[in-house]
Amino acid sequence: MAVLNARSVLVTGSNRGIGLELVRQLVGKSNRPEWIFATCRDPEGPRAQVLKDLAAKHQGVEIIPLVREKPSSVKDAATRVTERLKGVGLTLLINNAGIARRNLVMEAETPEDMSEVYKTNVIGPMMVSQAFLPLLRKASLESPQNGMSCSKAAIVNISSDAGSITNLFLWENAQVVNYRCSKAALNMLTRCQSLGYANDKILCIALHPGFVETDMTGGGLLSVNESVQSILKTLSHLSEKDTGTFVNWQGDVLPW
Amino acid sequence: MAVLNARSVLVTGSNRGIGLELVRQLVGKSNRPEWIFATCRDPEGPRAQVLKDLAAKHQGVEIIPLVREKPSSVKDAATRVTERLKGVGLTLLINNAGIARRNLVMEAETPEDMSEVYKTNVIGPMMVSQAFLPLLRKASLESPQNGMSCSKAAIVNISSDAGSITNLFLWENAQVVNYRCSKAALNMLTRCQSLGYANDKILCIALHPGFVETDMTGGGLLSVNESVQSILKTLSHLSEKDTGTFVNWQGDVLPW
Repeated sequence: MAVLNARSVLVTGSNRGIGLELVRQLVGKSNRPEWIFATCRDPEGPRAQVLKDLAAKHQGVEIIPLVREKPSSVKDAATRVTERLKGVGLTLLINNAGIARRNLVMEAETPEDMSEVYKTNVIGPMMVSQAFLPLLRKASLESPQNGMSCSKAAIVNISSDAGSITNLFLWENAQVVNYRCSKAALNMLTRCQSLGYANDKILCIALHPGFVETDMTGGGLLSVNESVQSILKTLSHLSEKDTGTFVNWQGDVLPW
Repeated sequence: MAVLNARSVLVTGSNRGIGLELVRQLVGKSNRPEWIFATCRDPEGPRAQVLKDLAAKHQGVEIIPLVREKPSSVKDAATRVTERLKGVGLTLLINNAGIARRNLVMEAETPEDMSEVYKTNVIGPMMVSQAFLPLLRKASLESPQNGMSCSKAAIVNISSDAGSITNLFLWENAQVVNYRCSKAALNMLTRCQSLGYANDKILCIALHPGFVETDMTGGGLLSVNESVQSILKTLSHLSEKDTGTFVNWQGDVLPW
């Protein structure tokens, strides 16, 4: 059975929800990554306390501030991770940070919400991926493995089935055009990354985590624990044939 | 054979390229629309001179300023069209205005370009559609036709096959991630509009005009004349079964 064996992992938006649970389950693994970089906007704020407690209990978990609106902050984060890794590459980048504005009907959608959500959900992952690309390339070159895998070098973009143009899941419940358009665009970004980084043997995937009970969804059909358990199992199985696809937490392929 | 019989048409970005040619061919039709509203950013600027000459020669062609960054400008445009139509609805809205930033490789992509292109190519069509929705609904209600058609009430969003996540056309020539992400998102917006306005019987479609020789592409395989001839023919054939799909200038369905 395939095992996720990533030497280092970076998770954005890691102070709550799926991001926090990813860090929690990664540190708990028997073959845990040597380094776990947990980024969030405000490590000193009250909303990062649980993450701070977690990092205090486990070696090799480092909290790093990352504010998408400040390009210098993205660069600073990459510099800090580069220093910590002491010449070694970054194995796995999980672009998890995301937002939604709960505009339930299209007529209530606003230019401001459309723009803000696109910046966080699409431009953010693009900037973070650009900044960490040299470290991902390094990890890929260092790996003795052939092909691609999340244990070698990978970008995982946390998307949503709400971004499936084909299916428009849960349209009746929430139109949230800002979120749907951003996730369709994130899926396109993922496909572009998969082609752009194919020669570097960096696996790129868009992943729908399920309709998970978090602060953001305010509901859900799946606990964050179950979702992240499945996600980590799925990541362990991904290979070159999966790059540039859109899968759910269980690894089933979703339509664009 | 189906005939496009739209009483009124509004075309955005109509001072050049496909937008200008749409206006030119629409006024030349034997069953031409009674009103053609041609919007552009700066009707008094030198880049609108050809459109002005065209409007001067033909009755019922009205040039209307529309600056996407100013929500008041979008509303003013809708108010002016409402006045001109004297209580009648708007049959066909063609969201044609679009831009691209020629960032040929992903590493050269910038947050600023990503954001600007999204605003013009996605948020613009959303705002314009919202503003003209009351007039489109009115046209739909007034029409004696059953089902949907571009002669009854329709939103046509000019998209691009570069926005097909499935195919990533011409990736080798130009990565232009800003444009691809925006067009994938515009396709999502089109699908959302098709569901949101289904009860209003407003047909909504994403249309790839072909790789057309214009200022924007700086190349192309198809003249703007040929493209627009085919587009108008295709629009005349669209019906309820086509709403929410992605078609090319010839009416062939494209994958998301």
